[in-house]
Amino acid sequence: MKINANYLNLKDSYLFSTIAKKVNAYTQAHPDKNIIRLGIGDVTRPLCSAVIEALHNAVDDMSTATGFHGYGPEQGYDFVKQPIQAYYRKRGVELELDEIFISDGAKSDVGNILDLFSKDNTVLVPDPVYPVYVDTNIMDGRNILYMNANADNGFLPLPDENVHADLIYLCSPNNPTGAVYNKEQLAAWVQYAKECGAVILFDAAYEAFISDNALPHSIFEIEGAKDCAIEFCSLSKTAGFTGTRCGYTIVPHALVADGIELNKLWLRRQTTKFNGTSYIVQKGAAAVFTDEGQKQIRQTIAYYMNNAKIIADALDEIGVWYTGGQNSPYIWLKCPNQMDSWSFFDYLLENANVVGTPGAGFGANGEGFFRLTAFGDQDQTAQAVDRIKKLLAK
Amino acid sequence: MKINANYLNLKDSYLFSTIAKKVNAYTQAHPDKNIIRLGIGDVTRPLCSAVIEALHNAVDDMSTATGFHGYGPEQGYDFVKQPIQAYYRKRGVELELDEIFISDGAKSDVGNILDLFSKDNTVLVPDPVYPVYVDTNIMDGRNILYMNANADNGFLPLPDENVHADLIYLCSPNNPTGAVYNKEQLAAWVQYAKECGAVILFDAAYEAFISDNALPHSIFEIEGAKDCAIEFCSLSKTAGFTGTRCGYTIVPHALVADGIELNKLWLRRQTTKFNGTSYIVQKGAAAVFTDEGQKQIRQTIAYYMNNAKIIADALDEIGVWYTGGQNSPYIWLKCPNQMDSWSFFDYLLENANVVGTPGAGFGANGEGFFRLTAFGDQDQTAQAVDRIKKLLAK
Repeated sequence: MKINANYLNLKDSYLFSTIAKKVNAYTQAHPDKNIIRLGIGDVTRPLCSAVIEALHNAVDDMSTATGFHGYGPEQGYDFVKQPIQAYYRKRGVELELDEIFISDGAKSDVGNILDLFSKDNTVLVPDPVYPVYVDTNIMDGRNILYMNANADNGFLPLPDENVHADLIYLCSPNNPTGAVYNKEQLAAWVQYAKECGAVILFDAAYEAFISDNALPHSIFEIEGAKDCAIEFCSLSKTAGFTGTRCGYTIVPHALVADGIELNKLWLRRQTTKFNGTSYIVQKGAAAVFTDEGQKQIRQTIAYYMNNAKIIADALDEIGVWYTGGQNSPYIWLKCPNQMDSWSFFDYLLENANVVGTPGAGFGANGEGFFRLTAFGDQDQTAQAVDRIKKLLAK
Repeated sequence: MKINANYLNLKDSYLFSTIAKKVNAYTQAHPDKNIIRLGIGDVTRPLCSAVIEALHNAVDDMSTATGFHGYGPEQGYDFVKQPIQAYYRKRGVELELDEIFISDGAKSDVGNILDLFSKDNTVLVPDPVYPVYVDTNIMDGRNILYMNANADNGFLPLPDENVHADLIYLCSPNNPTGAVYNKEQLAAWVQYAKECGAVILFDAAYEAFISDNALPHSIFEIEGAKDCAIEFCSLSKTAGFTGTRCGYTIVPHALVADGIELNKLWLRRQTTKFNGTSYIVQKGAAAVFTDEGQKQIRQTIAYYMNNAKIIADALDEIGVWYTGGQNSPYIWLKCPNQMDSWSFFDYLLENANVVGTPGAGFGANGEGFFRLTAFGDQDQTAQAVDRIKKLLAK
């Protein structure tokens, strides 16, 4: 037996373990200090009451022979797909129910979708990047090209006609930079993808944080995108489902390669290697899309976006360059005084007792940048920002 | 962009859709008939009260900021892994906690584990077979060899020294045949795997239905198996989790290939392409392993196994050959009067109004055999068996 030798090409990421070690060392040396973490990419607010009620009801269903649900459709129940269809319709995107696939989360789908593609395909990813896009392709041995995201292009790279790609990863609003593509920019990507015969793998996990009505939430708001894109979305950040686990993936029927609908291939993949998302969780997910659920999750998102505003306002005040903070829970700032990412990490930890994430951990172009997140407690965030302001205004 | 051309080699299975069409046609022609389904592989009894209570408590946790759980460890919480460790210890199998991986189900893991292996490996599967073993390898383009399971070997094929395999699928108690390997037989497989340098992918999804104390529940009850086996288990049939979704996979540290622990590779796969099983579901899963939970699931299993006994006793009475029915919820019978699988299906549907599953749907060696399952309602099962007895005793 031989292993998949591509695994030997994976590099371990020491980003979050190095952060933990540094914070631990500092805490042990200074047990009296109150460390505030603005580095986490996980939500902290509880599930909203509409979801909680739906989850309890679903658990009750499972306690009786008549309400019990065994195997469901691998691609998800219509009772979740229908409200998602309506959610897209509100933005003018018409989807068939069988173009929507419910799963245990976008990370699974983003990884598993690669089953459908030849190992010979060339992959285009931005730098800096969510590491999953890179590692999942290394596991398959695909050739990976990087496109530069940097301060010059506002961390929103556009297509380079001289580069040929087969699979293109776009994440907007972006993790880690918080930058958001507008419609014209996404239209340029759709046009490029069609010219290349490429598929755009569009990660819309943060779409719910967009407040500017002119910005697209979905790649399918762009004309022609159904011919060349798959979209991944998630309730993780939208509705606090990071530990509850539910996402959805849109594979349009119009997306055809070698005469075959990718929708059919994904259905085959999911029915063969997946047995559906928990009935209980799907019931909770459906509640997110009710009027009550939408009202409640908007309140939680507003809470997080208030944190983002507190951070962004402070950076404006002290004249630090950043992307994100609006239409995104992430703030991606340029380290002051030409500091590199890790020096700024140490400087902030030691002098403000605030923990963030060094941009260098997301790729070469992240060097000299730093990520703060809006998912913390409001009072703690305000306190951290005060400390940062005092430190950097010196 | 090119698709994974291996998908073009997949054959659609029309087994269950053909069954549904035949049953629908019969029902439309004979609306007055009471059809009883003994073909389903899904459980029908509700979740036990210990699990329901744990699920409700977990939902309540998610409703408060202090009880809320965001991202958990991708490989599962210790609060589930510890009782699983203890569950194995009762049968003399010592596992490290990090050899246990919690997932959304055995079907996902059985499919996804193939990420770790070279496409050049040769795969050995039994015929008849659970189709997922075959289709997932066709998707990767691996060479598949079949071993004959038949009445002569009691549907329990043993290794053929003249065949070289890299990956070996064993399922015991078997789906679809209900046959169960004893320790000597599994020891022969372990020895063969070591001689080949192969990995046994052991599907133990039905282990909880074993009542004969001499029969192994786990491949790891066999000496040396930790060097050459991965085990997949599931709460689907054990505790009625087919719609709740939780399974677990054991990858021992001792399993090493090319100098690399497969445990490390699987951890890398899961941390990259999976984000853990729902906290709520894991809390429910942990309750399965409490004293109360075990008592309650044993009652449900006894309910199903009483159905199996009703079916098996009737077959004994009328002299029909079968495997399973003891230590397994499946009964795999030889179609009487030399009927082929589909002829017997039609005969049973038309003359007893009972629906089963034609063995031919599971592989060439399934021709002439037929699967009945014990997962139905007790009264309905007894009534179906009465009809079968009357029909076949004629």
